[in-house]
Amino acid sequence: MTKIIDGKAVAKQVNEATAKQVAALVAQGVQPGIAVIIVGEDPASKIYVRNKNRKATKLGMHSIVRQLPATTTQEELLAVIAEYNADDSIHGILVQSPLPKQINEPLITMAIDPHKDVDGFHPANVGKLVTNFPGNYPVANTPRGIMTMLKAYGVNPAGKTAVVIGRSTIVGKPMAALLTNANATVTVAHSRTHHLKDVAKTADILVVATGITHLINGEDIKPGATVIDVGMDRDESGKLTGDVDFESAQGVAGLITPVPGGVGPMTIATLMQTTVELAKWSDRK
Amino acid sequence: MTKIIDGKAVAKQVNEATAKQVAALVAQGVQPGIAVIIVGEDPASKIYVRNKNRKATKLGMHSIVRQLPATTTQEELLAVIAEYNADDSIHGILVQSPLPKQINEPLITMAIDPHKDVDGFHPANVGKLVTNFPGNYPVANTPRGIMTMLKAYGVNPAGKTAVVIGRSTIVGKPMAALLTNANATVTVAHSRTHHLKDVAKTADILVVATGITHLINGEDIKPGATVIDVGMDRDESGKLTGDVDFESAQGVAGLITPVPGGVGPMTIATLMQTTVELAKWSDRK
Repeated sequence: MTKIIDGKAVAKQVNEATAKQVAALVAQGVQPGIAVIIVGEDPASKIYVRNKNRKATKLGMHSIVRQLPATTTQEELLAVIAEYNADDSIHGILVQSPLPKQINEPLITMAIDPHKDVDGFHPANVGKLVTNFPGNYPVANTPRGIMTMLKAYGVNPAGKTAVVIGRSTIVGKPMAALLTNANATVTVAHSRTHHLKDVAKTADILVVATGITHLINGEDIKPGATVIDVGMDRDESGKLTGDVDFESAQGVAGLITPVPGGVGPMTIATLMQTTVELAKWSDRK
Repeated sequence: MTKIIDGKAVAKQVNEATAKQVAALVAQGVQPGIAVIIVGEDPASKIYVRNKNRKATKLGMHSIVRQLPATTTQEELLAVIAEYNADDSIHGILVQSPLPKQINEPLITMAIDPHKDVDGFHPANVGKLVTNFPGNYPVANTPRGIMTMLKAYGVNPAGKTAVVIGRSTIVGKPMAALLTNANATVTVAHSRTHHLKDVAKTADILVVATGITHLINGEDIKPGATVIDVGMDRDESGKLTGDVDFESAQGVAGLITPVPGGVGPMTIATLMQTTVELAKWSDRK
């Protein structure tokens, strides 16, 4: 029988722990602060940003949403980032993707102080993650949230075969690094992979992050595997669904995350967790 | 029939190109400079350092070997690094491994100016490599040299299955990143991998970097595969050999690097190439 991983329930536990840590920090005179910068009027981005802001406020954090026009120049955006880099009340800075075409996204990623890089996308932080560097640094929230879910469900990656489909900086690459650091044998597959479905079927832990609706179905899953679906896709009727065909995975997968209610709630909970950690670490620089 | 990859011949080509670039830079008033710091008296390290120094000098570079006593403190080593970070005549700084126990190696890696990080081990540079960041930055020389050899022998990783055995910062992890960036489907295997030999046998391109003498033999190799042996091991009679049993790989592998004469000469040639690049890039900061 396939067990469904309840991302909402795990996220609730993470958020409760975060709220306590926020209260403890506030008692010490430090209120964790996050600044989310959004450029333009992408409707999905506006919803994400609103949700992040609500959650941060609800958990007792200082939360700023900085809405900039779609015509914002590179220099203007860099100036806003510099402002928050210098602002001691802000511990985490997030620039919402996607950005308009006139913005050089790698330069924006590099401009955020690595100590305030709440997304964990700065190369200095990615490099530490990949080399399993000692010390404190932020890690991309979606893969980190997935590791928290795996732990909550007793899935230890050590010695297991893991396949990550997708090689983005946001999910696939940091996911592969976290699983490798946890002693899994990790394969990163992607659009150029031959026999993708055969590769998927070798996985004890399968993470699918492609944005391709129902790319993976039950036949591509090793019986008993743990399947993590990072997709946030729309099916033909406009309904939210994943990169995995949830129905056909039933009875094959051992554990599976639903969409919605799996990875999504964990990502935002982990973002809040990371913000609080950045606030904690900020006085130990 | 198995074709032997002649690392010495490819290294010679790389060195010839490097010598020309050094001459061109010298004509512009910039002599590429490398500082190699060695702490203690490890005999193998002393040989490596001497070879690097000879090669750099032979190619027309400015080369410094800084020999420090085995009792050097962390602070003393950091001070020497700071000296070369500030020295405009030095474009590449290399701290030879292994370091004595009183030295915190991660802190040393972090102390080198990323623009002078000729080994490519600084997290900021590893992160750029892993995320395939645009722009110029150094990449670890052993895996980069392997990519040069693959290209010289017409092996295009795109769409191929690659297996990297070993997950070090020096070889395994940057190798996986380079092969992923070149559109291979990459598996990183290691000491905790189950059925390691079965995993090895899936590889069209197999890179073995474990330091375990003859870990892989002909039976573990997919017929026609390209086999890259990063091992520099000693067999029972003290003779230099690799992580791959070269004899039993004959007639199975399509292409294979010998030990010695494969990866070794490429690493030092690539180190020289990287030093020259750092010198070229140094005026564009």
